[in-house]
Amino acid sequence: MDKIALGPMPYMSVMPTLLVGANVNGRPNYMTAAWATVACMAPPMVCVALNKARYTVKGIEENKTFSLNVPSAAQVVEADHCGLVSGAQEDKAGVFTSFYGRVKTAPMAAECPVSIECRLFRSVDCGSHLLFIGEVIDVHADQSIVADGRPDTAKSDPIVYAQSAYWKVEKQVEKAFSAGKKYRKK
Amino acid sequence: MDKIALGPMPYMSVMPTLLVGANVNGRPNYMTAAWATVACMAPPMVCVALNKARYTVKGIEENKTFSLNVPSAAQVVEADHCGLVSGAQEDKAGVFTSFYGRVKTAPMAAECPVSIECRLFRSVDCGSHLLFIGEVIDVHADQSIVADGRPDTAKSDPIVYAQSAYWKVEKQVEKAFSAGKKYRKK
Repeated sequence: MDKIALGPMPYMSVMPTLLVGANVNGRPNYMTAAWATVACMAPPMVCVALNKARYTVKGIEENKTFSLNVPSAAQVVEADHCGLVSGAQEDKAGVFTSFYGRVKTAPMAAECPVSIECRLFRSVDCGSHLLFIGEVIDVHADQSIVADGRPDTAKSDPIVYAQSAYWKVEKQVEKAFSAGKKYRKK
Repeated sequence: MDKIALGPMPYMSVMPTLLVGANVNGRPNYMTAAWATVACMAPPMVCVALNKARYTVKGIEENKTFSLNVPSAAQVVEADHCGLVSGAQEDKAGVFTSFYGRVKTAPMAAECPVSIECRLFRSVDCGSHLLFIGEVIDVHADQSIVADGRPDTAKSDPIVYAQSAYWKVEKQVEKAFSAGKKYRKK
């Protein structure tokens, strides 16, 4: 294993492809983002990093609410479109059908199989990006993709973002908290 | 699209499978984690959420350094093992061969194709979990999986974590910042 040092870079192996929903100037807006993950179990929280210059930032700071919407692989064109075009230049309210949950100012994309409704907990200034940490108020999903009360991965067909490309998650390799039982000390 | 509200939960569509490397009580330790993403472009930062009770937390808080190591699909047993067993109960230093970079206290797993070396920037108390935000000091990779100065996704064969299972990333669907050009207003 010959290692090489590639220098500092914002690298992550695989990331989710998401649409950040926010009301900006009173209109629903959707922005593509991949720098997101779960931040806490109890209370449930998620986080997403957004460039300070983004139109969406204004809406989150104004309303202290946002949503993370999970497009399916069939929606890759719409998902990528929302990353190519800024809401400052073009009204993106019509790309998806918006609906609202308990938080009245976090628009969610009805065409996406899963939407995470969030109330802002904290934003951390990291430099070029703000890391928005949001408490999950509710998770909304298409009835058809839910199994055992949770979104089913195979049915929702989420898009992985890696190396500036979109990928499908296809084959389940192993169950977690199980595969490791086969481990034997070397 | 009949929507159902599933209630608040720490949901994310897809996540990376990682091994968090930290020196704890002077010994390298590796812990499986999936709640991680990029937090900033400039300076480059990543973040990872860890339960406060984890053995690894002690090491990160002590040294203010950690690493995120990306196992390949071939290492799924070792990766899951490090999530089943706590370093408090069992010495996990021997699961991987440790090496160190510029930050002298963040052990990295040589068998993993990619390792991200971090210096702690900030930790955010979210409740059950601490969100550790780290500045990326360097990215180390096996020469064989690097293409154009970056880790290649197909070659490094990372593991996706979703719905308590490990998945392979298999088919590239579209290029990002490109597919959206096909979008036509409805």
